[in-house]
Amino acid sequence: MNSSADYPSKTERIDLALRAGAVADVAGIVAEMSAGDIAYLISSSPPDFRDLLLELLEPEQEALVVNELPDDLRNATLIDREPEALAGLVEQLDDDDVADILHELPDDVSGQVLAIMDEQYRQRIQTVLSYPDNVAGGLMSTDTITIRADLTFDVVLRYLRRHVELPPSTDNLIVVNRADRFVGLLPIRTVVVSDPAVSVREMMITDQAAIEVDTPATEVARRFERNDWVSAPVVDGRGKLLGRITIDDVVDVIKEEADHSLTSLAGLAEEDTFATVWQSAPRRGIWLAINLATAMLASSVISLFQGTIEKVVALAVLMPIVASMGGIAGTQSLTILIRAMAMGHINDRNQLWLVGRESLIGLLNGIVWASVAAIAAAWWFEDMTLGLIIAGAMLLNLITAGVTGAGLPLMLEKLKIDPAVAGGVLVTTVTDVVGFLTFLGLATAFYG
Amino acid sequence: MNSSADYPSKTERIDLALRAGAVADVAGIVAEMSAGDIAYLISSSPPDFRDLLLELLEPEQEALVVNELPDDLRNATLIDREPEALAGLVEQLDDDDVADILHELPDDVSGQVLAIMDEQYRQRIQTVLSYPDNVAGGLMSTDTITIRADLTFDVVLRYLRRHVELPPSTDNLIVVNRADRFVGLLPIRTVVVSDPAVSVREMMITDQAAIEVDTPATEVARRFERNDWVSAPVVDGRGKLLGRITIDDVVDVIKEEADHSLTSLAGLAEEDTFATVWQSAPRRGIWLAINLATAMLASSVISLFQGTIEKVVALAVLMPIVASMGGIAGTQSLTILIRAMAMGHINDRNQLWLVGRESLIGLLNGIVWASVAAIAAAWWFEDMTLGLIIAGAMLLNLITAGVTGAGLPLMLEKLKIDPAVAGGVLVTTVTDVVGFLTFLGLATAFYG
Repeated sequence: MNSSADYPSKTERIDLALRAGAVADVAGIVAEMSAGDIAYLISSSPPDFRDLLLELLEPEQEALVVNELPDDLRNATLIDREPEALAGLVEQLDDDDVADILHELPDDVSGQVLAIMDEQYRQRIQTVLSYPDNVAGGLMSTDTITIRADLTFDVVLRYLRRHVELPPSTDNLIVVNRADRFVGLLPIRTVVVSDPAVSVREMMITDQAAIEVDTPATEVARRFERNDWVSAPVVDGRGKLLGRITIDDVVDVIKEEADHSLTSLAGLAEEDTFATVWQSAPRRGIWLAINLATAMLASSVISLFQGTIEKVVALAVLMPIVASMGGIAGTQSLTILIRAMAMGHINDRNQLWLVGRESLIGLLNGIVWASVAAIAAAWWFEDMTLGLIIAGAMLLNLITAGVTGAGLPLMLEKLKIDPAVAGGVLVTTVTDVVGFLTFLGLATAFYG
Repeated sequence: MNSSADYPSKTERIDLALRAGAVADVAGIVAEMSAGDIAYLISSSPPDFRDLLLELLEPEQEALVVNELPDDLRNATLIDREPEALAGLVEQLDDDDVADILHELPDDVSGQVLAIMDEQYRQRIQTVLSYPDNVAGGLMSTDTITIRADLTFDVVLRYLRRHVELPPSTDNLIVVNRADRFVGLLPIRTVVVSDPAVSVREMMITDQAAIEVDTPATEVARRFERNDWVSAPVVDGRGKLLGRITIDDVVDVIKEEADHSLTSLAGLAEEDTFATVWQSAPRRGIWLAINLATAMLASSVISLFQGTIEKVVALAVLMPIVASMGGIAGTQSLTILIRAMAMGHINDRNQLWLVGRESLIGLLNGIVWASVAAIAAAWWFEDMTLGLIIAGAMLLNLITAGVTGAGLPLMLEKLKIDPAVAGGVLVTTVTDVVGFLTFLGLATAFYG
C-alpha cells in the first residue's frame, strides 16, 4: 500500500477517462490530486484537454492550481475574469503570488481587484506590488512571525500557540528589535530541542545576513543555493524587516533563469510547450526573419567571389564546412560564457582570462581540425593548394570563434543587451562572414 | 549596519588582497565567510587563485567548502588525498554527500575510506552508496527523526529535547509504525502551535506520499517543485522508511538537469567554466570532429551538383541561406522538445500532437519566409526561376526541420540515446543535407 506508486496510475486513469469522454470519472480523480500535480497535468495537456480540466476544478482547488501553472498559461486563464472573481481567487494565495498575478493583469483590472480587497490586506499586497518582480521585494511575502530577543523559549512557545498555524516553509522565527529592525533568526528546530528557560538571545543565529529589498532575484537565488536556506528575511536599506522569501519561489527563479538561457540561445521567445500553431509560428518567425537577413549578409560576401567560384567549383563544395566549424566553435564559447554569467561567475578579475582561454582553445582545435580538413580536401579534389586554403581559413575562423564567442557576450552585457538573446545570431553571423571571406579570399589570391 | 551589503565588498577585498599577494589578509576575510560563499569564490576564480584559496581554509571549514564545490572541481581537489585524510574530511558531511564523494573516488580508495569509519557510520553510508546517485536512494540522507502516531505532543517535545539539535532542513518529523513503515508526517510548525495534550495521530498529515527509493532523481525534483516540499521521506517497495531527501539536494538536481540541456545542445561535455585550455580543448574537439564529418557529408551532396553550379554560380551564393534557415528552425523545434522532456511534459497522449504542431509551424513559417527569400533572390539576380527554386527548397526544408526537430528527439529517447547530446548534430545534418539536395536538385531540374 505504498502511495508513491500511485501517481503515474492516476494520470493514466485520467488519460483513459478523458479519451473515453468520461468527465465524471476525471473529476473524481482530479479531486484527490494535489494542486501541483493537477497544474502539471494541465500544463502537459494539449489545449482542448486543458480547458476541460480547468472547468472541472472545485472552487477551493482552483486558486492553488492556477497559481502553480506556468506564467503564460496562468495569465491566459485569468485574463477574461471579472474583478470580483479575481479578488475571490487571489485571496487564497501568498502575497508574492498575488502581486505576481496583479503585475501581469492590465492596470485598470488590477486596480479594480485591489479596490475590492479589505484595507489591511490591500496594504500588504501594495507593499509587495511596489517592487518589480525581478528583485527581492517582488519575491517576498509579508506574513512573517517575529519575536523579540529578550523572550524565553517558554514565552515564545506560548506566543506561537496563539496561532492556528504558521505560514508554509516557516523554518525560522525572525528576531527584531523595538524599531522592527532585523536582529537575527531563531530556527524552529532550535526552539523544539531547547530548555524552555533559555532566552531567544542565547540561541538565535546572527550570521545569516538579511536580504536587501532591491537585491536582484538572480542574486537572491544564488545566496539561497550557496547557503542551503529554506527562507530568508528581507529588509529595507536601514535594516527594517519587510518580509521573507521562501525556497519554493527561489526554485522558480532558478528554473526560469536556466530556461531563459536555453530558449534564448535557440532563438525562442520563452514559450509554452503546448501553445497553438498560431501562437508559436509568429514568435519563431521573428528569429527566422533575423536569420534570413544575416544569411543574406553572408551570401553577399560569397557573391563578391563569383568569378573565383566559376573557375574552381570545388570552392562551393567546401565553403560550408569552414562556416559550419566556426559556428559550432563559436556557439561552444558563447554557451560557456552565458552559462557562467547566469551563475554569477564572471567578474573583472576573470573575464580577460576567459577570452584568452577561449581564443587559445580555438587556436589548438584550429590546428588539429584544419589539418584534418586540409588532408581530406587535398585528397578529395587532388589539389594541395585547396588543402592549404581550407586549412588557413578554418584556423582563422576557429580563432575568431573563440574571440567572438567569449568577447561578444561580455560586450553585450556592458551595453545592457541580453547576451543570451542576441549572442547566438551575432556570433554565427561573424563566423559565417569570416569563414566565407577568408576561404574565398585566400582562394582568389591563389587561383584568381 | 546592514550585513547583506557586506558580501560584494568581501569579495572585492579578497580580490585586492590576492592581487597584492597579501595572503594573511585573504585568510582573515575567508575565515569570516560562509562555506557556500567561499565555494562560490573558488569556483569563480582562475586555477592559480583556486589552489591558493583552498590552501588557506581552516580544517573545520574545508569539508563544508569542498562539499559545496561543483562536482568536477570537488573531485579534482580530493583525488590526491590519503584515505585517512578523506575519512576525516567526509565525517563532517551528510550521508548523501559522503556517498556522492565516495561514488566518484576510485573503488580501492573508497573501500579504504569506508574501512576506516566506525561500524555504525559505515553501515549508514553503505545504505546510501548501494543506490546510484541518479535515483532517490542516492539523494537521501539517513538521519531522520521518527515518532509513533500514538504519542502526545507533550511527549514528542520531551523526546525532541533529548537531541542537541535536529538535522538541517528538518521541517517534518516522520511518523512510522512498529514495523518502521511510513505512516505520515508531522510538521514541526504544527508541533509548536498545538496544545501539548493533542496526539500525533490527530495532527499528522497523510496526504504527502513518500518517495520510493528507486524513483529517478528528475522525477523527485518534479514532485518537490510541484508540491513546494522542503523535505520528503524515502521508503522501500514495502513502505519501510529508509531516509529523507531535502530541498538543497533537489535544487542541485534541478540545476544539473537544466545545465545538461544547455551544454549538450551546444556540443559541450559538461564543463567547468574555469577549466584549463588543455582540459577543455579535447572535450570541445570531439564535437568539432563530429561536425567536420557531417559537414563533409553535406559537402558531398553539393559535389553531386558541381555541373549545375558551374552553369549558374548564383546557386553557390544562395545555397547557404536554405541550409541555415532549416538549421535555425530545426534547432527551435528540437529545443522545445528537449525542454519539454526535461520537464516531464511528454507522454503518449501528446507526442504526436507536438510533432504535428511543429510540422505545421514549419509549413506556416515556410510559406512566409520562402516568399520573402524568393522575392529577394529574384530581384537580386533578376531571375524569377531562381526565386521559385529557393522558395520551393526553403519551404520543404522548414517542414523537414519541424518534423525532424520534433520527431528525432522522441525516436532517440525510445532508443535510449540522450536527445540533448545527439539531437543537435543530427537535426542540423538533416536540414543541411535536405537544404542542399532540394535547392540544387530543383536547380538542376530547371537549368540542368
